[in-house]
Amino acid sequence: MQDRWIKSIPVRLTPPALKDNTADVDRLIKGLEKLLGGGEVTMDLSLSRRIPFLLREHHYHMEAVLYQDHSSWRLVDVFPPTESGSVYGVVVDLGTSVIALRLLDLVTGEVKEESSFLNPQIQAGSDILTRIHFAGQEGGLRKLQTLVLMRLNEEIHSMAQRREIATQKIVGASVAGNTTMTHFFLGLDPYWICRDPYIPVLNRPGLIRAGELGLGIHDRGGVLIFPNAGSYFGGDLIAGILASGMNHQEEVSILVDVGTNAEVVLGNREWLVACAGAAGPALEGGVANMGMMAGPGVIDKVLIDPATGEFHVTTIKDSPPVGICGSGMIDLVAQLYLAGMIDIRGKYVPEKCSDRIQAIDGVQHLTVVFSKDSGTGEALTLSQAEIDTLLRSKAAMHTILTTLTRMIHLEWKDFRKFYVAGTFGSYINPRSAIVLGMLPDLPLDAYDALGNTSLAGATKALLSLRKREEMDEIRNRVTYVEMNVNQEFMNAFSAAKFIPHTDRSLFPTVP
Amino acid sequence: MQDRWIKSIPVRLTPPALKDNTADVDRLIKGLEKLLGGGEVTMDLSLSRRIPFLLREHHYHMEAVLYQDHSSWRLVDVFPPTESGSVYGVVVDLGTSVIALRLLDLVTGEVKEESSFLNPQIQAGSDILTRIHFAGQEGGLRKLQTLVLMRLNEEIHSMAQRREIATQKIVGASVAGNTTMTHFFLGLDPYWICRDPYIPVLNRPGLIRAGELGLGIHDRGGVLIFPNAGSYFGGDLIAGILASGMNHQEEVSILVDVGTNAEVVLGNREWLVACAGAAGPALEGGVANMGMMAGPGVIDKVLIDPATGEFHVTTIKDSPPVGICGSGMIDLVAQLYLAGMIDIRGKYVPEKCSDRIQAIDGVQHLTVVFSKDSGTGEALTLSQAEIDTLLRSKAAMHTILTTLTRMIHLEWKDFRKFYVAGTFGSYINPRSAIVLGMLPDLPLDAYDALGNTSLAGATKALLSLRKREEMDEIRNRVTYVEMNVNQEFMNAFSAAKFIPHTDRSLFPTVP
Repeated sequence: MQDRWIKSIPVRLTPPALKDNTADVDRLIKGLEKLLGGGEVTMDLSLSRRIPFLLREHHYHMEAVLYQDHSSWRLVDVFPPTESGSVYGVVVDLGTSVIALRLLDLVTGEVKEESSFLNPQIQAGSDILTRIHFAGQEGGLRKLQTLVLMRLNEEIHSMAQRREIATQKIVGASVAGNTTMTHFFLGLDPYWICRDPYIPVLNRPGLIRAGELGLGIHDRGGVLIFPNAGSYFGGDLIAGILASGMNHQEEVSILVDVGTNAEVVLGNREWLVACAGAAGPALEGGVANMGMMAGPGVIDKVLIDPATGEFHVTTIKDSPPVGICGSGMIDLVAQLYLAGMIDIRGKYVPEKCSDRIQAIDGVQHLTVVFSKDSGTGEALTLSQAEIDTLLRSKAAMHTILTTLTRMIHLEWKDFRKFYVAGTFGSYINPRSAIVLGMLPDLPLDAYDALGNTSLAGATKALLSLRKREEMDEIRNRVTYVEMNVNQEFMNAFSAAKFIPHTDRSLFPTVP
Repeated sequence: MQDRWIKSIPVRLTPPALKDNTADVDRLIKGLEKLLGGGEVTMDLSLSRRIPFLLREHHYHMEAVLYQDHSSWRLVDVFPPTESGSVYGVVVDLGTSVIALRLLDLVTGEVKEESSFLNPQIQAGSDILTRIHFAGQEGGLRKLQTLVLMRLNEEIHSMAQRREIATQKIVGASVAGNTTMTHFFLGLDPYWICRDPYIPVLNRPGLIRAGELGLGIHDRGGVLIFPNAGSYFGGDLIAGILASGMNHQEEVSILVDVGTNAEVVLGNREWLVACAGAAGPALEGGVANMGMMAGPGVIDKVLIDPATGEFHVTTIKDSPPVGICGSGMIDLVAQLYLAGMIDIRGKYVPEKCSDRIQAIDGVQHLTVVFSKDSGTGEALTLSQAEIDTLLRSKAAMHTILTTLTRMIHLEWKDFRKFYVAGTFGSYINPRSAIVLGMLPDLPLDAYDALGNTSLAGATKALLSLRKREEMDEIRNRVTYVEMNVNQEFMNAFSAAKFIPHTDRSLFPTVP
């Protein structure tokens, strides 16, 4: 794809003469406009001041870095000519829990390095509502913004250092996050986002100068901020749609991004409908006693032999088991069901659980890993309450999917592709999710785990003008549907709490 | 003229609702775009941050101030609704010696106040070359810029205070000056302006945000900087052409701006040719012993009775005479010639000067005002050397006019209008200038004194988009001609040193 909107182009100017006394800045602009073949070139006064020196220092032969803003080009800087003309960009996924970033070569499109870190705003509150409240306190918003920016700038700085790249050569960025995270990032007050009628400060931040934002790349670099379609439909999901390409396909696809919220998009090249709902925190680490985020020793796969009742657990890096992540939980509960250790209500069937089951304070607990095999020295157990929480989450997910699908008069079989985004999507075993009745009973090859779609979409938009424009098109095309939690929804939710569902015909392949 | 490019428009928005959850900033932008009927509206991130508060504080009913930059509108600020919706602008003429400014009501176009002050850069050098040299020293450029900005901001502040206008309500400015003064103002290094091949840093500064510049008006106000057509053809002269309207006329006119340089423009609605040359400092105050800038007691008119040899001098404010200004000098020398007290070479004819003439150190001095009538207590005298200087200046002016006119194959009689700009032009008696052979022997009604055309043109461009565009059109249309000081020029110059000229046929009305 060669429709870059950030360009580094070599420029060679005729030096001034008595017969051609065009000013330095105008000479450079004229030369660039000719090379670009369209669109006006502009620059900051601060850069204008340095142009006479730069032209003469480089003998009128330089590498000019520009980015396209609407119909005009902004000159970022002028560098000495190099072989590669390489300049770099940063792509950021502003997650509520984890912030991921990439360093890109903007000429070749190559990913130079990728990294992620815990969102330091967690110290002000792990969930978004606590942070919105925190932002309302004196200096709170500024603090939240600074926390992210400082940590991000640190990370950009070390990446650049490791790659031996001057931060002055990082001349652009692309940032996608949910609406509130984007507000924090831009220093915009999220007060009205969580209050009726749920109004963001702005929908389309567009391109912002890095210096105005405080992002640690070239001061005059352009930072593309993904737009949102409302308080509950953020730039991360728009990036997700962009990454999946579902907006180009003739067939209808579905995209699900599971985090604290389950965000769902249905559509094709003609229409896009989206909705979000609380999927419940059980799908992230942190609710089950032994629940945690993916890491060494974390159980990500479970197999139970229905004949012997034997457990085979697989952990990340094959370390001794220390806990379980969301995808491991789904495997585990699906396997418990298939082995008959829990019934369709998700309740333990003690006579099937042999020596693994015991009641603690009147609540049944199943030992998944005995203490002798555990990396913590203690047994890893799963309580009835934890299963109930998971089933509520899966029921919420199922109900959101069903309700949305019915609202637009489609059936599951109409979906050709089912994209699952996020870390969760990369680890989940779709078959287990189908067994639980969490995901629709589609052929397994319909499922496509896309990984971090926020990062993938933001990368596309940073490298291509067409994709950047598509970003806005998606925003304008998507219809956001408020999920109405009425009696009908609650009935559907109750039916979906069973494994896989009260209506078995919805899951013909599940025994 | 209602094609304002800075506008204050009342806007009333529908408050948000669950069914209409457009973000605050987008809601305002959408509302404004509808009212403006074309062109995108954009705003700074810094303003975006305040919009949610402003919308709610003013109950979605406000006065929005915007300015047009290319095809888009920049939002400067949002104010509570007022009756008049008045906002203000500042117009600045950046003179080398004197800086003049105006406070304008941008709605009515009315001039609220006008003022001027000595350019404080004079402390770094009274002439432009000394200042360019000063700018080359460590911190020199910054110092020159700061001197003007601080003094200007002081003046703007007092003007606003006297008129009881908040400086936040001064939302735009328009600035015209010669190329070097404009460079100082923008903090651009003028080093190459005075060095072969004479290259400015930039020709078209365009619109700059007041905050970026440090101008003491609204931080987000737009400052229009007049472009230059080269090192020796500045924005002040482009403003002059704009003020005269000569670029619209079918007939050919001439515009002369006399300062340290004589700047001359010839042309009509089809073509414009300009040139500048050193007219000599005799036309400004400061060379003659008794020369000074206009002020109380300064002689601005002289009449000599050829029969009696009696002098009638008129002074500014009718105060006792203390000195003479450029226009008074021209009157005086023309009258001396008509009274036969000097000959066509400008030499004193002692026998015609009665008791007024005396030699001091071998140089003839004529007493213009005897000590008893003088405001200084001492006689005001005019030496032969001072007359010689004036005649060199007038010869330079004449030669420039003649040379340029001949270069484009025209004759003086082809000019329908002869515009004289500057303070000099406002005070000069054209008849006296014709008698001296300084200005062409045209009918007196062809002469039109325009006053400060730099200020007048900058005012027009601040109030009208059409005029602002015309400013750039003029810049692009004008052909700057280098005055070649060759033997031919020197011959013409020698002939022009006589009163009125060696070729009397050029001045048929002069006795």
